[in-house]
Amino acid sequence: MIDLTLIGIGTGNPQHLTLQAIEALNAVDLILIPNKGAGKDDLAGLRREICDQVIRNPDVKITEFDLPTRDPKTTDYRQRVDDWHDAIARVWADKIATHLPQGGKVGFLVWGDPSLYDSTMRIADRLQRQQKINLSVVPGITSIQALTASHAIPVNEIGAPFTITTGRQLRDHGWPNSADTLVVMLDGECSFQSIEAADTHIWWSAYAGMPEEILISGSLNDVSQRIVDTRAAARADHGWIMDIYLLRR
Amino acid sequence: MIDLTLIGIGTGNPQHLTLQAIEALNAVDLILIPNKGAGKDDLAGLRREICDQVIRNPDVKITEFDLPTRDPKTTDYRQRVDDWHDAIARVWADKIATHLPQGGKVGFLVWGDPSLYDSTMRIADRLQRQQKINLSVVPGITSIQALTASHAIPVNEIGAPFTITTGRQLRDHGWPNSADTLVVMLDGECSFQSIEAADTHIWWSAYAGMPEEILISGSLNDVSQRIVDTRAAARADHGWIMDIYLLRR
Repeated sequence: MIDLTLIGIGTGNPQHLTLQAIEALNAVDLILIPNKGAGKDDLAGLRREICDQVIRNPDVKITEFDLPTRDPKTTDYRQRVDDWHDAIARVWADKIATHLPQGGKVGFLVWGDPSLYDSTMRIADRLQRQQKINLSVVPGITSIQALTASHAIPVNEIGAPFTITTGRQLRDHGWPNSADTLVVMLDGECSFQSIEAADTHIWWSAYAGMPEEILISGSLNDVSQRIVDTRAAARADHGWIMDIYLLRR
Repeated sequence: MIDLTLIGIGTGNPQHLTLQAIEALNAVDLILIPNKGAGKDDLAGLRREICDQVIRNPDVKITEFDLPTRDPKTTDYRQRVDDWHDAIARVWADKIATHLPQGGKVGFLVWGDPSLYDSTMRIADRLQRQQKINLSVVPGITSIQALTASHAIPVNEIGAPFTITTGRQLRDHGWPNSADTLVVMLDGECSFQSIEAADTHIWWSAYAGMPEEILISGSLNDVSQRIVDTRAAARADHGWIMDIYLLRR
């Protein structure tokens, strides 16, 4: 029997950790850390640093694993992602069988919150189909909250709805008519350039909550090009970037 | 000069506190706690309990204040809320002037996250118009994340948008066509009863993350009445209720 806990750790600021996350990290037998992926060394290093800072239980074993890569030969996007998740689930199963042959408690550190645009829960679902797993989730600070906290703005207008979406959705479908506030995630292409800038305000953040954090806000007309340039320069500097923004019209 | 920090404390589970929130609570001169409001004694008590558990700095002074009430004679909703926020800002200003005549650092504990359907930031804005205030925000775990963590579900489908809205919006405008996933907050009237239940799944939570937490999920057709009944009974038991749900079609 495996207890699997997905532990939200916030957006890269170790101070985002909750007491519940720290307790969970100290209560597991095994922590699996991917050593490849977005941000590569920086982010794997940050996960290890977080573990070093808060794990006081000497019985917690931390093991890294090589994250499989997506197969670029699979042209269909959904199929490529599905295959990739299957491959990751197989690696998890191998690691767990090796380190906990009698079962036990396994923890995963998840950036932000495990519910939000993250594949860890979908991979855990695959594992659940193959073996008896108790799945639990510890919520974490999301990049949405890191964004709004750093800009000190509310995410919603009073009593009004807002929509969370992706760069691809914004490019392909434009501004949805259901809300005057959009939060855009997973946008590698500055998709705010595809919408009508007049009367739109943007609050943009890269590396939200981290020491490297960059904040830009203003009328989209005024700051659009500055964000594009700043993003390109920061990405070149760090080798990776995570950014997010809120649009309000 | 006043430094004002709005500190997200999560949804009532003291384990939701982040290290950043604990640091912020220990770094202020004065914490202002409202002793009336939704949930009344239970929630004011929980705020005091959280302070007792994590504040180690003896120089932090905790003061309660009577929260003004909304004036039911003001019939316009927005005007009533605006007047109420003005009144609260006046009480804050009085308390701060009394306890910190030379200026200093003031902290407010905010349920969930200060950015999300919460008036504290709007009241701070009023104060900023009257005096020099440095405003900062510490993000907190929201009820959205407590909901999805307890049900162990992702909030979004892969690459898909979702909309956060209110009970009133759902009743007045129906299901927005921009997203197949809705998170509904601030709903005192079980507004999921107003939508087409066929092919809709609901994940509902009351007192999300707290010891009293109640979870119900299933096809909306099957569980709608059970949620209505459970909510009414729990509200009668506790004298107050906070609930939230996710709908997916």
